[in-house]
Amino acid sequence: MKLASLKAGGRDGSLVVVDRALQNYVSAAGIAPTLQQAMDDWPNAAPRLNALSEKLNAGECAETRRLDFAALASPFPRAYEFMDGSAYLPHVERVRRARGAEVPESFYEDPLMYQATSAGFLGPRDEVPVSSEEYGIDFEAEIVVVTDDVPMAVSEMAAAEHIQLVGLVNDVSLRNLIPPELAKGFGFVHSKPRSALSPVLVTPDELGDHWRDSTLHLPLQSWLNGKLFGEPEAGVDMQFNFAQLVAHAAKTRPLVAGTIVGSGTIANQDESLGASCLAERRMLEIIADGKPRTPFMSFGDTIRIEMLDRQGQSIFGAIEQMVVPYG
Amino acid sequence: MKLASLKAGGRDGSLVVVDRALQNYVSAAGIAPTLQQAMDDWPNAAPRLNALSEKLNAGECAETRRLDFAALASPFPRAYEFMDGSAYLPHVERVRRARGAEVPESFYEDPLMYQATSAGFLGPRDEVPVSSEEYGIDFEAEIVVVTDDVPMAVSEMAAAEHIQLVGLVNDVSLRNLIPPELAKGFGFVHSKPRSALSPVLVTPDELGDHWRDSTLHLPLQSWLNGKLFGEPEAGVDMQFNFAQLVAHAAKTRPLVAGTIVGSGTIANQDESLGASCLAERRMLEIIADGKPRTPFMSFGDTIRIEMLDRQGQSIFGAIEQMVVPYG
Repeated sequence: MKLASLKAGGRDGSLVVVDRALQNYVSAAGIAPTLQQAMDDWPNAAPRLNALSEKLNAGECAETRRLDFAALASPFPRAYEFMDGSAYLPHVERVRRARGAEVPESFYEDPLMYQATSAGFLGPRDEVPVSSEEYGIDFEAEIVVVTDDVPMAVSEMAAAEHIQLVGLVNDVSLRNLIPPELAKGFGFVHSKPRSALSPVLVTPDELGDHWRDSTLHLPLQSWLNGKLFGEPEAGVDMQFNFAQLVAHAAKTRPLVAGTIVGSGTIANQDESLGASCLAERRMLEIIADGKPRTPFMSFGDTIRIEMLDRQGQSIFGAIEQMVVPYG
Repeated sequence: MKLASLKAGGRDGSLVVVDRALQNYVSAAGIAPTLQQAMDDWPNAAPRLNALSEKLNAGECAETRRLDFAALASPFPRAYEFMDGSAYLPHVERVRRARGAEVPESFYEDPLMYQATSAGFLGPRDEVPVSSEEYGIDFEAEIVVVTDDVPMAVSEMAAAEHIQLVGLVNDVSLRNLIPPELAKGFGFVHSKPRSALSPVLVTPDELGDHWRDSTLHLPLQSWLNGKLFGEPEAGVDMQFNFAQLVAHAAKTRPLVAGTIVGSGTIANQDESLGASCLAERRMLEIIADGKPRTPFMSFGDTIRIEMLDRQGQSIFGAIEQMVVPYG
């Protein structure tokens, strides 16, 4: 099934079930008013939401409405935890090479992960407000999973069973604020503002055999100002799969239902597939020419992030955002 | 007024108003079922909660009950954002000196802050489960504030007006997991598990003239296994006040109602007042004798964190926790 949240309603929006083709939706208010409330009661809510989804996809729902992406909030307008990994080592290698840093051996065995802000997610078509272009505005196209309640110190094998939903995220990054924050050693605060999740989150069964080994095996497309920027294969070069990332996140704490765990920027060793963020392309330019040609995003620039199935059908809907000046 | 949450109820507990003496409480269900819901509607909820508090303290509430601290959940059993500062530079100086690192000049002008987990807070009397004593189990006694909705890029002056509640936190820290995480540069994940807030959070007016310049001017006591461990003055050596910390947290994102901002471990230049964590005492021992004498916490050890007013009355109730083996 595919789940989304309308902006209408309170701070957490209103939960709806969306059909496979992303054309119509039906209210899920009778089962759970919000996605967080569905996650809080997942063992009861999931089968009922699934049954509603079956009916919707069979054309048997009377109360369906036409889906308007602009009316969608983030599936989680706010969430309790977002742990963002960095599982695609080609991304880490390139970003580090650009600043002359080595990739430690341990990075290939121990996942990189940071505590990200989860208090507010931008809607999938919302503008990205930034105070200054000098911040070095970048996108990062990633995959996320959502867990139910996960016990502390869960094994990797058990962690796989706690992955209930899959989606995309634009992890907005302010590149010029990153070096001073990394130098302070306490991770990202200013350099990682609010992100945007995809219009819908889907259960793993919607992905068929593209979901295996807790990894999503399809390319992820990023379009910058309407031009294809990159489409690396999410199933290639993922050093740590989502079960490993969830287990890593839960090593010293339980994860509450609705915890979001991110893959990090999708990146392949094969450079011909392009990148999922500007920082990587700029790095390749620096290596080739000594300086970057591609600027960071300016006010008015747009980013579109989308994953298509083998038939060309959008799975999660597209994240489409314009960067705008704040205030 | 003083607010707390009973464990009884759902994942967010049940909001209650507690009297000034921490003896009795009354349900606030008629105003807001949970503290988060009160924060979500603060302009309406606060005056009504205040009126209920006045009645309670005047002995005019019929439905009062005796307060049992063990029945309390964290005031926020889960929250959307916890940004923890490190505003007491003597703490930073000592911890860095212990590992032979300098304190950069910028640390005196630009607050240290990290994105902490907010998805689950331990109750004020809950045990602290840890998988291994080898992790180097430590407490950190801190002050926190809670904001209402704060706009992005708020000024320091405006930020002060968004501080609605004040409390304490035991920021549980796993010291031996910190150096490898800091080396990775992405901040704390495993080394900062769930924390515990004080039994009650209070509005700043409850603090009288001890709350001024967005700083709490009283000593904070830590008792380890029943013995006074430290009582540094929270009003001394706070390099950045809470208005500055809130403004820092909000530089590139709005803060949602119910955001928790922490002071970092309370520490004074004056070493005679003791410390608010084991790491600092161990550091002073290393400087004096070349090695630490004080061990980190063992299973069965207890920590009590409390702030008394000038009449010796507990303001927030005591955080009292025992460290126990997990699993």
